Amino acid sequence: MLEKYHQLIQEAIDHLSWQQEPVNLYEPIAYILSQGGKRIRPHLALISAEMFGAKAEEALMPAIAFEMLHNFTLIHDDIMDKADLRRGKPTVYKKWNTNIAILSGDALFAKAFEQMMKYQGGNKDQLLQLLTTTTIEICEGQQFDIDFETMKNVSIDNYLNMIRLKTAVMLAACLKAGALVAGVNEKYQDLIYQYGLQIGLAFQIQDDWLDVYADVSQFGKNVGGDIAENKKTYMSLRAFEKVEGADRQLLEKYFSLVNFDKQAKYQAVKAIYDKYQVGADALALVENTFFRQAMQLLSQIDIPQDKKQPLIEWTNKLIGRNY
Amino acid sequence: MLEKYHQLIQEAIDHLSWQQEPVNLYEPIAYILSQGGKRIRPHLALISAEMFGAKAEEALMPAIAFEMLHNFTLIHDDIMDKADLRRGKPTVYKKWNTNIAILSGDALFAKAFEQMMKYQGGNKDQLLQLLTTTTIEICEGQQFDIDFETMKNVSIDNYLNMIRLKTAVMLAACLKAGALVAGVNEKYQDLIYQYGLQIGLAFQIQDDWLDVYADVSQFGKNVGGDIAENKKTYMSLRAFEKVEGADRQLLEKYFSLVNFDKQAKYQAVKAIYDKYQVGADALALVENTFFRQAMQLLSQIDIPQDKKQPLIEWTNKLIGRNY
Repeated sequence: MLEKYHQLIQEAIDHLSWQQEPVNLYEPIAYILSQGGKRIRPHLALISAEMFGAKAEEALMPAIAFEMLHNFTLIHDDIMDKADLRRGKPTVYKKWNTNIAILSGDALFAKAFEQMMKYQGGNKDQLLQLLTTTTIEICEGQQFDIDFETMKNVSIDNYLNMIRLKTAVMLAACLKAGALVAGVNEKYQDLIYQYGLQIGLAFQIQDDWLDVYADVSQFGKNVGGDIAENKKTYMSLRAFEKVEGADRQLLEKYFSLVNFDKQAKYQAVKAIYDKYQVGADALALVENTFFRQAMQLLSQIDIPQDKKQPLIEWTNKLIGRNY
Repeated sequence: MLEKYHQLIQEAIDHLSWQQEPVNLYEPIAYILSQGGKRIRPHLALISAEMFGAKAEEALMPAIAFEMLHNFTLIHDDIMDKADLRRGKPTVYKKWNTNIAILSGDALFAKAFEQMMKYQGGNKDQLLQLLTTTTIEICEGQQFDIDFETMKNVSIDNYLNMIRLKTAVMLAACLKAGALVAGVNEKYQDLIYQYGLQIGLAFQIQDDWLDVYADVSQFGKNVGGDIAENKKTYMSLRAFEKVEGADRQLLEKYFSLVNFDKQAKYQAVKAIYDKYQVGADALALVENTFFRQAMQLLSQIDIPQDKKQPLIEWTNKLIGRNY
């Protein structure tokens, strides 16, 4: 099943055709879309559509529109974050330059809308509205993220709101897109959207945990990258809530340092996280709050359990649950 | 009549409400939209709608959507062009920073779509499609413009294609938006679009001419700015087509210089333009080609002449025709 979705998505992306000129506008777009990645967002749209009784093919246009939208945000985010690599390859702004990255991102954004416009099934207006609202919320999330870098007091609530906007709403929107394609009632549209928010939050908190505890050989990214950059994540924010005394002074020292031995800093901060069970808190939040709530929401959707199975499988894969 | 349009537009923009947070996302949007400018694009949409028998009010949503889209392009263009001032005030990227300008531009782009989605009259799909296509073309135009900076051989045809995309299509789209709101046939939609392209081209060539020949006291921008920056405009490209011998060597010297006395360079280049009647060529192109073609296109639209009068007046104002 998931293999079928993967093929559908890959073929649809391969068949997107880009104008030849201007080369510097369309090459970066073809470049980022060809890099693959997990295609989480279009998968969610197709899975949701079939779960609600539509054919996956019917949801393909909206699914690809969201994948395009996602890649547009990556192009612009990489400029803002000065990220040199993505999926192991130079980012657009690095391979070309900032201006080309701004402009090809803008064009890809417009192309995402164009893609959605091509959809000819039901609830088209709602799908377009969903794409628009989601984009605005992602911009808000990214701005909060940037703002947080220079803010002293960021609460965990602030942080959860930020990752809801920056990460979770797009996953939620893709699931809702599937529901809209299938034409289910508003209650189900909303339940699956709320489900998406929960797994989106779980996914990001999991990612924060992985930055500290992942097996280097399995984790794509640099383990300890967030710690090295003093990033505000669930891990660091939770630590600052809990850690006291000498440990806190140490933590504060490390999180104010710019020049340091990366490995020593990582080990020291990790030791504090271990001692105060910050990692356990993160996993508990993922498991006992977000995952549990997601399942509770899903249980309110009255369709046969076997119909829900692909979504549950994908969810488990997404948030790294191996049981 | 034009005063009424101006009020409608101003009120609609004043009534746009922006979320408070994140402040760094929405303040730049409110800032650029409050600066005014001539509001050429929404005016064209309203004028066209009434010309074709609709009420101006009916076209207000699309008109404002295009104004928002235009301002999004300004925010991003000013980053790319490193422009410090716009309408006499600091640009968004200068007043805040590049990241905030990228992101608030993105959000304004999405808000333009949201605005268009609010329109509830006829031809909504076509209006959304028009907004999308126009955005993509503007991105293409801007990319060509950037590419041209470092290209040796840019022909006048290349240049006209670039300004068609970068400037003219948005004016054409606004006029077509009015026609779509009024629900006229496709032939008229296309004629008014083509009319818009012609006046858009005329407007830009006029602007190129003004950079050399404008009365400093009347022209908002720095006279001679294009010459100072070795910009490829109709003026310089036409000069390189015509100028020969010692004059050409002088021209080539000036257009390869980076450090120079600005005023001396301006005077020298202007003297060559005078001698070879480059300015006269520009005005002839505006008047005998683009303006004439525009009028010819307009004459094919079979509505009473007095209905066309506001558009003709606005066109004359736009391309500085005082007779």
